[in-house]
Amino acid sequence: MNFKIALIRGDGIGPEVVGEAVKVMEAVGKKFGHSFSFEDVLMGGCAIDAVGKSYPEGTAEKCKACDAVLLGAVGGPKWGHASDPEKRPETALLSIRKDLGLYANLRPAALRPALADACPLKKETAEKGIDLMMVRELTGGIYFGKRERYQTEDRGEEASDRMAYSQMEIERIGRRAFELARLRRHKVSSVDKANVLETSRLWRSIMHRLSEEYSDVEYEDVLVDNAAMQLVKDPSQFDVVVTENMFGDILSDEASMVTGSIGLLPSASIGDTAPGLYEPIHGSAPDIAGQDKANPIATILSVGMMFRYSFHLPHEADAIEQAVDAVLAEGWRTQDIAKSGEQTIGTVQMGELIRRKL
Amino acid sequence: MNFKIALIRGDGIGPEVVGEAVKVMEAVGKKFGHSFSFEDVLMGGCAIDAVGKSYPEGTAEKCKACDAVLLGAVGGPKWGHASDPEKRPETALLSIRKDLGLYANLRPAALRPALADACPLKKETAEKGIDLMMVRELTGGIYFGKRERYQTEDRGEEASDRMAYSQMEIERIGRRAFELARLRRHKVSSVDKANVLETSRLWRSIMHRLSEEYSDVEYEDVLVDNAAMQLVKDPSQFDVVVTENMFGDILSDEASMVTGSIGLLPSASIGDTAPGLYEPIHGSAPDIAGQDKANPIATILSVGMMFRYSFHLPHEADAIEQAVDAVLAEGWRTQDIAKSGEQTIGTVQMGELIRRKL
Ligand SMILES: CC(C)[C@H](C(=O)O)[C@@H](O)C(=O)O
Ligand SMILES: CC(C)[C@H](C(=O)O)[C@@H](O)C(=O)O
Repeated sequence: MNFKIALIRGDGIGPEVVGEAVKVMEAVGKKFGHSFSFEDVLMGGCAIDAVGKSYPEGTAEKCKACDAVLLGAVGGPKWGHASDPEKRPETALLSIRKDLGLYANLRPAALRPALADACPLKKETAEKGIDLMMVRELTGGIYFGKRERYQTEDRGEEASDRMAYSQMEIERIGRRAFELARLRRHKVSSVDKANVLETSRLWRSIMHRLSEEYSDVEYEDVLVDNAAMQLVKDPSQFDVVVTENMFGDILSDEASMVTGSIGLLPSASIGDTAPGLYEPIHGSAPDIAGQDKANPIATILSVGMMFRYSFHLPHEADAIEQAVDAVLAEGWRTQDIAKSGEQTIGTVQMGELIRRKL
Repeated sequence: MNFKIALIRGDGIGPEVVGEAVKVMEAVGKKFGHSFSFEDVLMGGCAIDAVGKSYPEGTAEKCKACDAVLLGAVGGPKWGHASDPEKRPETALLSIRKDLGLYANLRPAALRPALADACPLKKETAEKGIDLMMVRELTGGIYFGKRERYQTEDRGEEASDRMAYSQMEIERIGRRAFELARLRRHKVSSVDKANVLETSRLWRSIMHRLSEEYSDVEYEDVLVDNAAMQLVKDPSQFDVVVTENMFGDILSDEASMVTGSIGLLPSASIGDTAPGLYEPIHGSAPDIAGQDKANPIATILSVGMMFRYSFHLPHEADAIEQAVDAVLAEGWRTQDIAKSGEQTIGTVQMGELIRRKL
C-alpha cells in the first residue's frame, strides 16, 4: 500500500525524533511492502518564527490531503508569553484538533517490562502491572467554550470559561471507548464529576445507555477526584478510562507519570473521517534539542499506533512494538530512561537499533 | 477560654469519629484551661431521612452562632441517586461552604513518620518526605456557576457549566496561600491552565502581582496537567500549592493518596469572619459504620487544625499532633492503617490512647 504522511516536525527535539520515526516507517514499509510519501507541514513555534503565526493558513488542508499526520513536539518557553493567540504554539494544537475533527485522544499508559524499575510506585504495585488506555474527549468541553473577561461593580475584573457537552459528542467518544475495550480487557471506567456538574450528569446518563448496548463490557462510573487517587493507589484496576477533555488532560498525564517513562509513551488523536494525528506525549525539551540526546521511542511507538488505528495494519504495529521491547530488553537506554551510572546511547543510535530488530 | 462548637456528626462512621474527637477536645480543654459547649446540627443523609432534605433550614444560622464547626462525614450510597438536589448530601456540603463563606480549603498532605511505609510511592521518593499544604478555593469556579440543559437542533441534548473567577476571589485565596507559606517553607506553587482557560489567565496575573508583594516567598506557576504528574514524581518539591476549586478537588485527593493514609488527613475550610469548618477528608464508610472500626485520627487532627486556625492556639494544636504521633510511634493501629497480620484496635481505644498522651 501507499501512504501519504504529513510531518509536523515542530520545535525542540521534534525534528530529531520525527527523523528517526520516519526511518522506522520506511523500514517497516520495506519489510511489509508499503511505501510512503512525506509532506512537511510547518506548525508551532517554528511557524511563529518563520511566518508570524503558530498555525499558518492551509495547515489543516495540507494535513487533510494526507492519510495520517505525525507530529514531533510543538512549543517551548521561547514562545510562552505572547498575548496574541496567533503567536502561541498551543493555539495550533487546539486548532488542528478542531479542524481535523480529532475528537478521540488515545493515550496508552503501560509499564514496559524492561522498564518496570522506572515506575515511581512501590514494587508490589508495579508488579501488578499497568496497562490502561486513556480515552480523552479532545474537541469539546471547556477547551472550546466561550471565554469572557469583564469588569464587575464590586469584585474587580472577572473572567469566565464555559464547558458544554452535547449528546452527539458524548456518544461518539463513549462508543470509541467501548469498542476499544472489546479489543482489550472488556472494562470501561467512565470518569466524571456528576455530583457537581451538569455536563457530567448528561455524560453519565449517556454512558449508562451505551453500557447497556455493550453489555459484554464491564462498566463503572468513577468520580474524577477518586480517579486521581485510584491511579496512584492501584492503576492495574483500569483497562479503558474514558473522560472529557479537561479531566482527560489531567488524568492522562498523571497516568503517564505513573508508568515512569514519559519518553516512551505515544498517543493517537482520531476522528471519524479525517487523517489521525500521532505524537509522543512528551514535550519539545529545548534544553536537549539538537544534541542527539532525545529518546525517539515515544514517536516510534506513535507510528505503531498510526499503523494500528489509521491504516488498520496490526501486524506492522506489533512488529514496531516488539522491536522496541527487544532493544529495551537488551539494555539499551537513552539518557532519560537510564539509571545513574548506566551507559547511554543517542537518538540516532536508538532509532537504528530498533530498525535492525524489524 | 470558652468555645461553642457546632457538631455535624453526619452519616456512616461520622458520629463515631466525632465522638472521639470531642473527647480529645475536652481533654485538651482540661489541660490548657478551656471549656466547650456543643450544639448538634443535623445535615447530610441523616437529615434527608429525618426531615426530607440534606440541608435543613437554619443550618447555616446554627453554625454561625458557634465559634467553629466540626463535621464527621456526610453522604453514602444510600442517598446517591436522588434527582432532587435537596435530597442529595453533596448539596449540603456545597451550601454550607457558600453560606459560611468558607472560601479557603486547607488540606495538609504529610507523611507521618511512623506510617512512611504506607506511602504508595517508592521508598527513595517517600524518604525525601512529603509535607505540603493544598490550598483549594472553595466557593467559586465551576462549582457555583450557572448550569444549563437544553435541546439542540443537530447534536441532541446539551448541558453546560460555567466557570467564573473574579479578582476579589482570586486575591483573597492567593493571600491566604502566601501567608501560609510564610509560616512554612516559604514557597507557593500556583496551579492553573493558563494556556487554555481565561479564568486561569486572570488567576495567574493576580498571583504574579501578589508574588511581588510577598517577595520573601518563592513562587512558581504550574500547569494543572504537570502538577498531577509532579505530585507522583516528587511531592517533596511542594510546600504550599494553591489552586481553584475543581483543580483543587482533584489534586488534593491525589496528594492525599500519595501520603498513603487517607484515614489520617484532616482539613479546614475557612473564610474571613464566619466560623471555620473542620473535617476529616475520608468519607462516611457505611460498610464499617457502628462497628468501632473507624480511624478517628483524621477527625482528631481536624480538631488540631481548629485550635490552630480558628482559635489561634498553636500550642494546643501541637499537643494534639504530638499525641497522635506518639500513639502511632508505639505501633497502635486501626484496621485501615495496619499491615496484614498486625494487631488492630478500635475507634474508641484509639481515641483513648491519644487522650492519654495529652
Ligand atoms: C498544550 C495544551 C493546550 C495541551 C492540552 O491541554 O490539551 C497539552 O497539555 C496536551 O495535553 O496535549
Ligand atoms: C462531595 C463533593 C461535592 C465534594 C467536592 O467536590 O467538593 C468532595 O469531593 C470534596 O472534595 O469535599
